[in-house]
Amino acid sequence: MANLTLVIDAMGGDRGPSIVVAALARALQSFPDVNFIVTGDEPRLKALFARESKVNKNLDLTRLTIHHTTQIVHMDDKPGECLRKKQDSSMRVAIDYVAEGKADACVSAGNTGALMAMAYLHIKTLPGVIRPALVAPIPTAGGSQGFLLDLGANPVCDAETLFQFGVMGTVLAKEMVGVSEPKVALLNMGTEEIKGPDVVKQAGLLLAQSPSINYRGFIEGSDLFTGKADVVVCDGFTGNIALKSCEGMAKLVFDHFQASMKDHWLSKALAWLLVKRQRKSWQWLNPDQYNGASLIGLRGVVVKSHGNASANAFYSAITHAIKEAQIQLPERIQAQVEAVLSEQS
Amino acid sequence: MANLTLVIDAMGGDRGPSIVVAALARALQSFPDVNFIVTGDEPRLKALFARESKVNKNLDLTRLTIHHTTQIVHMDDKPGECLRKKQDSSMRVAIDYVAEGKADACVSAGNTGALMAMAYLHIKTLPGVIRPALVAPIPTAGGSQGFLLDLGANPVCDAETLFQFGVMGTVLAKEMVGVSEPKVALLNMGTEEIKGPDVVKQAGLLLAQSPSINYRGFIEGSDLFTGKADVVVCDGFTGNIALKSCEGMAKLVFDHFQASMKDHWLSKALAWLLVKRQRKSWQWLNPDQYNGASLIGLRGVVVKSHGNASANAFYSAITHAIKEAQIQLPERIQAQVEAVLSEQS
Repeated sequence: MANLTLVIDAMGGDRGPSIVVAALARALQSFPDVNFIVTGDEPRLKALFARESKVNKNLDLTRLTIHHTTQIVHMDDKPGECLRKKQDSSMRVAIDYVAEGKADACVSAGNTGALMAMAYLHIKTLPGVIRPALVAPIPTAGGSQGFLLDLGANPVCDAETLFQFGVMGTVLAKEMVGVSEPKVALLNMGTEEIKGPDVVKQAGLLLAQSPSINYRGFIEGSDLFTGKADVVVCDGFTGNIALKSCEGMAKLVFDHFQASMKDHWLSKALAWLLVKRQRKSWQWLNPDQYNGASLIGLRGVVVKSHGNASANAFYSAITHAIKEAQIQLPERIQAQVEAVLSEQS
Repeated sequence: MANLTLVIDAMGGDRGPSIVVAALARALQSFPDVNFIVTGDEPRLKALFARESKVNKNLDLTRLTIHHTTQIVHMDDKPGECLRKKQDSSMRVAIDYVAEGKADACVSAGNTGALMAMAYLHIKTLPGVIRPALVAPIPTAGGSQGFLLDLGANPVCDAETLFQFGVMGTVLAKEMVGVSEPKVALLNMGTEEIKGPDVVKQAGLLLAQSPSINYRGFIEGSDLFTGKADVVVCDGFTGNIALKSCEGMAKLVFDHFQASMKDHWLSKALAWLLVKRQRKSWQWLNPDQYNGASLIGLRGVVVKSHGNASANAFYSAITHAIKEAQIQLPERIQAQVEAVLSEQS
């Protein structure tokens, strides 16, 4: 395998570059064939890497390049303004590396809107792709993995765009998880054909007509994680609400579990024993490993980490980006989109 | 307090009338001042009540009337056809009791679309109310309760309708939970003012302008249960997706908890002890007690139970309906809507 180059926006997240540097130190060791470029405040990054080197004498920094940038895209910056005014930001310079073919993939924990706008304008979509989509892996019953898209890149979508999301999601499930004929479904407020908005019904007709898609109809939110579908398609507004509502529910349950353990020494002891015994079994539900939403449909790999990701979670986002670059995900999506477009014509 | 009369559709749920009769037997004992009418297949209902009477000698069936009906609204029936062809269904007859003022409230576990259509057409909306909304209580951190609406009665809404949902939700949080100035928020894909569809932004402006509403802006799905809002407003498509996605997530977590307990005797023992100790603490998250979505904005009380509710869950739906009738929720909503309309004019 040829050497890959990954570019990392170090200044994007809520928690500062120290998280990114810690994740990168781990990645430098796990991926000896990957070169890393990191964009951001050079003096600060140098100091952080020096500290990492002290802890870990074997850290190979020869595969690391620091590209100094003078601007930061903040979480509340407007995407349009970032496009015009933040041309020397750590995010924009990282995107440019991919756009110019000098890096195979980019990871950022920064402002999602700005990242999408920059990627869309500078890396550009693949031929035939209407809109890029933000997609994330989701856990499914039995320990497997599905994909939900779009998660917010496109708040409103037409039927053809939703159809293309189904096509691109199919490629992801095949190439990233190894599902041979990924089941595709549209997220809707009921499973009956008469249910839901017209655009969802029209997208259903397009998906049903395509021989390349294993279309299974509508599914409800309650079936997001049951494995009824490997690829769940919706507009970005709906996907964002669905995913974040699930986050909220999971947090409610786990917080209550933790809080309720504090009320009595026996509860605490039981919980401690249980967590100790069960850690491995729960690992597949650990949100850290699901960190990293991919912006797909572009002429390059762009992965968005959660803004307040931990070092472990940011490391997961890096591993997603490396895997997508290794399997040449954009080229595979392009091939599938071309095949589907030729079916239609 | 004057005697209340509640009408129950016994044939609506997925699990048949035995669930309903078991819940009713319990309600007859808990609410000695309430009269019950039950609509459905009389011979079958009589047999079920006879069985209940054998188990419980004190069951007072003098406050129960069985109204025999010959038709059933099935879960996959189309609402429009039910309106025309199912005039002697258990659901329609129950709705008519409320429409004609012969009952104070109605509970059904049947086809949601048909129930809404019948209620809208026959019970009708309150003066000034654009559309009725389906609303459910949701748990919030700290053991309190919020409300989410709409849950599917109105897949697409205009800004004025969303605004009215905020007004009606405020009344619910005040009267049902006792919150003095309920915090109202719109469910959106971000908290910044520029985020989300235009209709949500317009609804935000309307809510912000109203002196009667304690409007707190947009919230994301991740804050549904944090108590940031007592009333969360969205269109029915979005609310349905959010609520059912949360159901899916909760089921994933609890199923995995149960499954992971089966792998080793020690895990099983620990889990048993933990559940025993923690049952009370988890009670506020028990989905049964949240069963019962209310159709509000109508000239009467209509409560929709989950289709596959257990007897305990159906009993919860009955208690919600009784409480709404006791506090005369429709009259209170009407007063608030009139007050807000006069502010606007």
